[in-house]
Amino acid sequence: MATIIALNKKRQDLPPTANPHNALEQLTSLVADDLAVVNQHILQRMDSEVPLIPKLAAHIIASGGKRLRPVLSLAAARLCGYQGERHRKLAAAIEFIHTATLLHDDVVDASYIRRGSPSANALYGNQPSILVGDFLFSRSFQLMVEDGSINVLRILSNASAVISEGEVLQLTSKNDCATSEQTYLEIVRAKTAELFAAACRIGAVVAGRPAAEEEALRTFGLNLGIAFQIIDDVLDYSAEQERLGKTVGDDFNEGKITLPVILAIHRGNEAERAFWHRTLNEQNQRDGDLVFAQDILRRHGTLRDCTERARHYGAIARDSLGLFPDNELKTALLDVIDFTINRQF
Amino acid sequence: MATIIALNKKRQDLPPTANPHNALEQLTSLVADDLAVVNQHILQRMDSEVPLIPKLAAHIIASGGKRLRPVLSLAAARLCGYQGERHRKLAAAIEFIHTATLLHDDVVDASYIRRGSPSANALYGNQPSILVGDFLFSRSFQLMVEDGSINVLRILSNASAVISEGEVLQLTSKNDCATSEQTYLEIVRAKTAELFAAACRIGAVVAGRPAAEEEALRTFGLNLGIAFQIIDDVLDYSAEQERLGKTVGDDFNEGKITLPVILAIHRGNEAERAFWHRTLNEQNQRDGDLVFAQDILRRHGTLRDCTERARHYGAIARDSLGLFPDNELKTALLDVIDFTINRQF
Repeated sequence: MATIIALNKKRQDLPPTANPHNALEQLTSLVADDLAVVNQHILQRMDSEVPLIPKLAAHIIASGGKRLRPVLSLAAARLCGYQGERHRKLAAAIEFIHTATLLHDDVVDASYIRRGSPSANALYGNQPSILVGDFLFSRSFQLMVEDGSINVLRILSNASAVISEGEVLQLTSKNDCATSEQTYLEIVRAKTAELFAAACRIGAVVAGRPAAEEEALRTFGLNLGIAFQIIDDVLDYSAEQERLGKTVGDDFNEGKITLPVILAIHRGNEAERAFWHRTLNEQNQRDGDLVFAQDILRRHGTLRDCTERARHYGAIARDSLGLFPDNELKTALLDVIDFTINRQF
Repeated sequence: MATIIALNKKRQDLPPTANPHNALEQLTSLVADDLAVVNQHILQRMDSEVPLIPKLAAHIIASGGKRLRPVLSLAAARLCGYQGERHRKLAAAIEFIHTATLLHDDVVDASYIRRGSPSANALYGNQPSILVGDFLFSRSFQLMVEDGSINVLRILSNASAVISEGEVLQLTSKNDCATSEQTYLEIVRAKTAELFAAACRIGAVVAGRPAAEEEALRTFGLNLGIAFQIIDDVLDYSAEQERLGKTVGDDFNEGKITLPVILAIHRGNEAERAFWHRTLNEQNQRDGDLVFAQDILRRHGTLRDCTERARHYGAIARDSLGLFPDNELKTALLDVIDFTINRQF
């Protein structure tokens, strides 16, 4: 609870012009009752007799996350007319999977800031972050088992396996300027979009809706997830530091090959390619390199064009909701697409 | 297949007196047909389009593991008169959970040798070891979902959560000479014995046997697992290096507080406690400290008494099989208890 209030408060502190219409807050408010129960499940089920587990888990779970995936799952279920309570526990399971991957990601990437605060590995070390990630992952399956649907278990165990594959593919593409846009898309789909897809799809599953609606919500989630990650990768070069909640330039520093860079490499001259090779392949970076990289990206319009690419996936997500009746929830879900693409943080 | 043959070959190379009766080989041979299929499942399901995944997974899965947990699960099912095939896929799922924890353990412990070869993290680095561990963990749940039993999913998701709790508890007890025998037992039960228990119990579950047999096999696995881990911890101080397949003294070097040390701390004088505090709490170790530690353990008879403690759990495991009819499989399972306690590697 405290988390959500703190988060809202922080957002309200932003100058009003910077946040004309926060569609995610609107969507969140529409599922507020469900989300309150999800947060109770999360707090209860991250507990353990081993004190370090709830301590570390609370740090990452209470550190101002948007609960984007649970909110999408709750909203998808309600959009399908679901009147029960199963989606609440499953939304908690989805957030646990997400949190487990964040804990492991921060260790793998040696990231020390997450959502504007020190990351769990920065505070507690890599070892507990790995193990508590494993714990939360197991907890997510315990929650699904309590729900009892093999179908849900299939969807989320498949998504989990694909996420790990995406993470490994990302790791093997790191520091490799030859990474193609296609490989980038495969990574983004696997590591980010599949969990969005599963979260939305499960809304239709618990509501017992026909395959067409399940597929429509899967399509919505998958494409929203791709758009979300592309914009995340744009913001890593373009955001204002204090609003991003993580360090601008992290991807550059780590040598992650994201879409803005892939486009710039393809559009650049020999000297620029040598620059990318030195800074990203060889990880030989000097003062001023990040600013120079940002300058190249701007010159080739790659940040603008990445946003255009994101709009394409957003358009697919938009059309996929065509099956559903118009109502407040559907409007909020559609607005979240635009919000995801136009956000500055 | 190659793995199993290579393993047998290695064992046969040992001097005959050192290995008068390898009960684990006997048990393994009784479930050889099942195990061959388990190995096929393992090889098929560790595959991925991301090449690093099967490469790294093959390294740890094919590196001469005894397949102890799958063999126990297969044997338990056959002991229950099971005639089907479900236990084969589930045994593969159990081995995947075990392998995932090994990958993460070696990262957490910074261990560079596993089964006499460089560990996966030594060869490929920590990052892929973490992520491929996550992948194998997800794969294990996919295998269980294919089996389709919520009951099995409950047992193994519970075991997985308890394993992570045990690992975190072990981490927080590291370098703490105040760790009690009770805390040690709680760690051992959680990190090792629960998966043995689940593996054996699932034999009765797939066979559809009554609760008493399910409980008996759970008791067998749990207590065999505790005995197994105590002896592992004894061998870490007493084994011959070339037969152990890992570095003798690893636990000492890392400051892990295991039963031989706990007993020695309780039985020792002030000077000895100061020695343990310096070497384990403060991790201030010098040349000759390991030999000196081994000398203290021998002087207080703690290795011998740890083995006695292990015999106690072995006796519980032995009695738990009383419900089952006498046959070749039961004899082999009982012999595995003695083998586990008397092994030198």
